[in-house]
Amino acid sequence: MPRSSDRVTIHDVAQRAAVSRQTVSNVLTHPTRVRPETLERVQAAIAELGYQPSSSAQSLRSQRAGAVGVEINTLGPRSHNETMAPFLGSLAMRAAEHGSHMVPFGSPGDRPMVDGYQAMWARRLVDAFIIADTHHGDPRPAWLEENGIPFASFGRVWDDPTFTGWVDVDGAAGTGAAVAHCADLGYRAVGYLGWPSGSVVGDDRRAGWAAGCARTGVAPGPEESCDQDLDDARAAARRLLADLGPSDAVVCASDILALGLHHELLAAGREPGSEVGVVGFDGSDTALMHHLTTVEQPLDQIADRILDLLDDALAGRPRPPAGSLLQPVLLRGDSTSARSRSR
Amino acid sequence: MPRSSDRVTIHDVAQRAAVSRQTVSNVLTHPTRVRPETLERVQAAIAELGYQPSSSAQSLRSQRAGAVGVEINTLGPRSHNETMAPFLGSLAMRAAEHGSHMVPFGSPGDRPMVDGYQAMWARRLVDAFIIADTHHGDPRPAWLEENGIPFASFGRVWDDPTFTGWVDVDGAAGTGAAVAHCADLGYRAVGYLGWPSGSVVGDDRRAGWAAGCARTGVAPGPEESCDQDLDDARAAARRLLADLGPSDAVVCASDILALGLHHELLAAGREPGSEVGVVGFDGSDTALMHHLTTVEQPLDQIADRILDLLDDALAGRPRPPAGSLLQPVLLRGDSTSARSRSR
Repeated sequence: MPRSSDRVTIHDVAQRAAVSRQTVSNVLTHPTRVRPETLERVQAAIAELGYQPSSSAQSLRSQRAGAVGVEINTLGPRSHNETMAPFLGSLAMRAAEHGSHMVPFGSPGDRPMVDGYQAMWARRLVDAFIIADTHHGDPRPAWLEENGIPFASFGRVWDDPTFTGWVDVDGAAGTGAAVAHCADLGYRAVGYLGWPSGSVVGDDRRAGWAAGCARTGVAPGPEESCDQDLDDARAAARRLLADLGPSDAVVCASDILALGLHHELLAAGREPGSEVGVVGFDGSDTALMHHLTTVEQPLDQIADRILDLLDDALAGRPRPPAGSLLQPVLLRGDSTSARSRSR
Repeated sequence: MPRSSDRVTIHDVAQRAAVSRQTVSNVLTHPTRVRPETLERVQAAIAELGYQPSSSAQSLRSQRAGAVGVEINTLGPRSHNETMAPFLGSLAMRAAEHGSHMVPFGSPGDRPMVDGYQAMWARRLVDAFIIADTHHGDPRPAWLEENGIPFASFGRVWDDPTFTGWVDVDGAAGTGAAVAHCADLGYRAVGYLGWPSGSVVGDDRRAGWAAGCARTGVAPGPEESCDQDLDDARAAARRLLADLGPSDAVVCASDILALGLHHELLAAGREPGSEVGVVGFDGSDTALMHHLTTVEQPLDQIADRILDLLDDALAGRPRPPAGSLLQPVLLRGDSTSARSRSR
């Protein structure tokens, strides 16, 4: 592999590009803060001179790895988690602007455990972690806190209401907006296909549906629950369909559940949207591929806010007074359409 | 954030755990080479003493970042690429054993371009790259070669037949095995749903289907082609279904195409597998979720072999005489089943 060219320094690059050393440094660490024409000129000088900044030397000086660890157990098949992969994509894309980069890592086993975090931290590969999908009894937040390791969470840390370093999506607002969308289109009643009660995320989304019906005055339709699994969702959708009228809609707790309803409608000879309306939740590839109306999680915005939280933590700034609850966005597909009687 | 404890050294850890310094070093960089009980003892000593090895200092000495860059443009929604996310998962899991870690990064735009690679290399964040999905006219392999940057490819580098640093899956063997599976089960004829001719990967998979029919003596069924898109696949599947008998099967170039056929079978009131057999390709989450029989890409094995190639390149060892063509594995789902007349 090529060796670092010891003779070419940041001074040489600055001189060649007729800019300050600080500008060269900005190009390397915060390229978006530099004007495009300057960026181009400095990058050309870097290429011409063969300048290779040593990030190792830089991070040794700052005592930083410049990296953030993200566990990716949920990337594998059968994870039924359609958010983690695009979220990692958003993080990787936004990290450069924060002068950092992502290091994904895995732990053996199905559930996220602290072992993988411990190994990453022991090797000093990262300065901080991003955790996701915390749940009651999750050992990670307490372990990270106890060891003084900076972290931020995608999703509230349910076991520690005092921890404010989280970014979450307002699930209830999302299902509420889904109900309002169906009411606007003229659906007669709006049912709900959700997860069994007891999961905090699921209960939140269900509450948003119920509140949405009350607020808009649309009749609450039938309700069923199932696990986050396509077969279960199809079985629950079959039960739902028996009680659904031709101008009813169903708001679902996830795109996977909406897909189950989609399949049962197909099997019943009905294209989703033409009679029964379907709204999913997540804005996942599944929803886009099947043209499902869905409630999209603003992943780029979530990634940015999480990286801001880590910037603050690493700079020693205090945690914010409260977590960040971001608004999801209704993404219109073909699985909902205006009822003739409504126009 | 906690500061590195300057007073605790690797000697202290070795003494506390009653092992050599080399063993402590192995625990940090190659934990799988250490016996479990030793690993546990050393990790306990690290935790008790609060020892924090500086990977920055280590990599400065070795002139290495210890990291491998992987572009993840294809992680986003609408990518229609179901292999990249689990492949990144496999890489992240296997990298620790190779003493390295993955740094995913993105480039603006749809097509992989060299800009993102250039920025990563300029910042010295990585020692090497893994590229995937190369295609005719892809500027990346030539750029990496010209700049002497170590890389390995998941998929043959079609523009440079002399480059042997690749690992690929034997697509023709996979579709051939799919035909043999259908012939074994007693399907009367085996059709094909593929991509338009001209893509090297697609042509390879189609050739495997044709050769499989010739080899097993099963009748080749009807054939259709479409883009890697669910709507297109459904339209092509509708055309296919008009020509398919009740005991025919269809081998597909991807799981997305198989999903299109699955949906059309549902819409026609037929559960996939009960009459028409369906075999996908990729072993993706889509196939698992829909219980499709599929040809699985051995992603862990591919990740291991690619990391071996990079280890060799970074150690200055010569490239292998030829690329590695790995065998995919047929994964049996519910979308194929034994024909009554065959038993």
